[in-house]
Amino acid sequence: HGQKGAKMNVALIIIGDELLSGQTQDCNMLYLGKKLRKVGHALKTVVVIEDQEEQISEAFNYYLDHFDLVFCSGGLGPTKDDRTKKALAHFLQTELQENQDAYRLTELHYERRGLTWKPELNHYHVLPKGVRPVENPFGLAPGLQVRKNKATLLCAPGVPREFEGMVDNFIQASDLFTVKTERKTFTIRTQGIPEEQIFNQKCPDLWEALTAFGEVSSYPRFTGIDIVISNIRHSEDDLRKKISQLPEIAPINDYIWHLGNGALEQLIVEHGKNNNLTISSAESCTGGLIAHLITSISGSSDVFNGTVVSYANSAKINLIHVYEQTIQQFGAVSEEVAREMAEGAKKVLGTDYAVSTSGVAGPLGGSAEKPVGTVAIAIAGPKETISKLIHIPRIFDRAEMKERFAAKAMVKLFKQMKLGR
Amino acid sequence: HGQKGAKMNVALIIIGDELLSGQTQDCNMLYLGKKLRKVGHALKTVVVIEDQEEQISEAFNYYLDHFDLVFCSGGLGPTKDDRTKKALAHFLQTELQENQDAYRLTELHYERRGLTWKPELNHYHVLPKGVRPVENPFGLAPGLQVRKNKATLLCAPGVPREFEGMVDNFIQASDLFTVKTERKTFTIRTQGIPEEQIFNQKCPDLWEALTAFGEVSSYPRFTGIDIVISNIRHSEDDLRKKISQLPEIAPINDYIWHLGNGALEQLIVEHGKNNNLTISSAESCTGGLIAHLITSISGSSDVFNGTVVSYANSAKINLIHVYEQTIQQFGAVSEEVAREMAEGAKKVLGTDYAVSTSGVAGPLGGSAEKPVGTVAIAIAGPKETISKLIHIPRIFDRAEMKERFAAKAMVKLFKQMKLGR
Repeated sequence: HGQKGAKMNVALIIIGDELLSGQTQDCNMLYLGKKLRKVGHALKTVVVIEDQEEQISEAFNYYLDHFDLVFCSGGLGPTKDDRTKKALAHFLQTELQENQDAYRLTELHYERRGLTWKPELNHYHVLPKGVRPVENPFGLAPGLQVRKNKATLLCAPGVPREFEGMVDNFIQASDLFTVKTERKTFTIRTQGIPEEQIFNQKCPDLWEALTAFGEVSSYPRFTGIDIVISNIRHSEDDLRKKISQLPEIAPINDYIWHLGNGALEQLIVEHGKNNNLTISSAESCTGGLIAHLITSISGSSDVFNGTVVSYANSAKINLIHVYEQTIQQFGAVSEEVAREMAEGAKKVLGTDYAVSTSGVAGPLGGSAEKPVGTVAIAIAGPKETISKLIHIPRIFDRAEMKERFAAKAMVKLFKQMKLGR
Repeated sequence: HGQKGAKMNVALIIIGDELLSGQTQDCNMLYLGKKLRKVGHALKTVVVIEDQEEQISEAFNYYLDHFDLVFCSGGLGPTKDDRTKKALAHFLQTELQENQDAYRLTELHYERRGLTWKPELNHYHVLPKGVRPVENPFGLAPGLQVRKNKATLLCAPGVPREFEGMVDNFIQASDLFTVKTERKTFTIRTQGIPEEQIFNQKCPDLWEALTAFGEVSSYPRFTGIDIVISNIRHSEDDLRKKISQLPEIAPINDYIWHLGNGALEQLIVEHGKNNNLTISSAESCTGGLIAHLITSISGSSDVFNGTVVSYANSAKINLIHVYEQTIQQFGAVSEEVAREMAEGAKKVLGTDYAVSTSGVAGPLGGSAEKPVGTVAIAIAGPKETISKLIHIPRIFDRAEMKERFAAKAMVKLFKQMKLGR
């Protein structure tokens, strides 16, 4: 590893009672981790602490002593529970004072939003002495940057968009990132087989064999087990060929639905675009989640026509022409109804493919025969409609059930699209 | 505070390269924080570290020395990158050995899923000497529990459902939680006004006034600024009355859409249930997100009939009877089209209320007149249909735009429902 010498120890301090008390989901760790990986580095440690001046100050003290680069998120807002600047002043053994650059920067931030800033509004122009204000490309409060001993500290607001914008600008401008090549990964995507069956039963030599291409790890996802190879030294195409020819992987070939990276919804949209295919969905138990995932991809409108979420049976009957008799005879959660839903959506929304789901997400509902976790999934395509009743263990909560139903349905859709059926 | 004596210092160690490298979103911090708050405690610190034996062992050493109770998530799976047990053995200066209780527990976990466990499958029956295996109510790998000096350590798998189940069981059974009363909060929900305008301009004495009821904090959400009062000593009803009568809050009355806790989708479903109202949606730019949020609430099927996601204009025309001429005359993103979408969905799906969205989520698309961030939102109700074109600053990415569009639309829906219009 010729890069080793250039490796930095990077830490993130996240400030906020709201995160520790389970009121807000942190996204900044995820973003920073991903971003650093793209420029050839890694986040080594993250610590989340209460918004107490003393704790923040202690964290600055410890992490700036042990790491080369420290990011800090949160505590820069206009209210009384925003204590980062005080803590930083305490740590630097200096005082808060008005800063001309911060003054001008704050004016600029407000102007950009068509607003006028006055010092009575907040203390955005007040910084610890010796600290440099940092432009906030998407917000109003400036960030802070300071060097202490050999370490650099960047403090950004906790609001994800603002944190992200400041991190991006910092990395772009910083000479700390001498290596700016992405640490690339390659993913083997499976569905329907547990981790231990892959590695301890079917393919006992696979892990070892894959280490020839990089660092191996394995993660359970809603879509199944992902085997991830990090720091790869081959191109994605190259690796796809090499891995698909590995004798050690052959026993799980039937469980692999894709060789390569990318969110499932992105793969679906890309495949649709490249092959001029359109998609729609008819969702009952997934309640619009499939549509939400697909429309999260920019450019999905070229591929995705729409969805009918048919929670009420009347919606199934009126909008996508499911026969009332089919519901009465087989029940709403049945291969027969899912088939009619998919075919109805395909026709009504005028698409090449349609995916449908009808199931019991729970925690209430279901029957002895069709308990919580039962879902009928159908894919209607240009050549055939497939439909199947699936049972997912009743151990997940409603949110996760919906995610798992949607993932199963979307993997099936993707497979049928790749087969052209 | 008579409870102070009973307070514990609680920390969480999260293990996993996948989190630090931005490949997986952690949910266990959020869950543990929320759970601890419900039993009168608080999570004081969270640290996220790489899955390296030495680092894990060091973290055990530091946190068990400084905290009374330490939770640890991750690194208990069947693959080679699962190193928690080795690290724990190292920290305890002991060895890994077969454990009869772990053996029986693993057998039980497999039996529950209709599977048969054999020691060849994995090392779930091997634990550091002196460590107690812990039942995993939703998974296969047992957890670990050990006391060292005066601290207790509970190690659970990182899979959220398994971590949550083990935490729940631990807290239920533990005598560490002498205080089991929830630290209750109360939320003042606003929309359309920034934090600093609330506290520094319109209501300079509000923060101070609210501290009479508990600890005050303020968080920006997709739905607007939430002012949260923690550790309240009054009932929710009591506080609602007292706060709505505060003279200090009067200047922002028009911006408050709710006094009380609960996710917006939950408030909508509850209000619908209590008043026998049904809802549907017609979504363009939100792409099914409103439907997904509402159907995430258990029991939403009593209230929610369905949705048409009309990404293609043909879907708007065919399914919810928007006039082609209206689209041609005013454009798809217009008050007129949103109005017809809401009224169409209300009629076709046979509901009391329907909410519609048509906008440009970006990053591509839009025009000079209707740039990214423009959205038309309409609510059709029993007495009227309201429709409005809104502009959201073009600073958010597609995912956040969708969330903000949906939040705006759902607040409007909730307001109209409360007004009975």
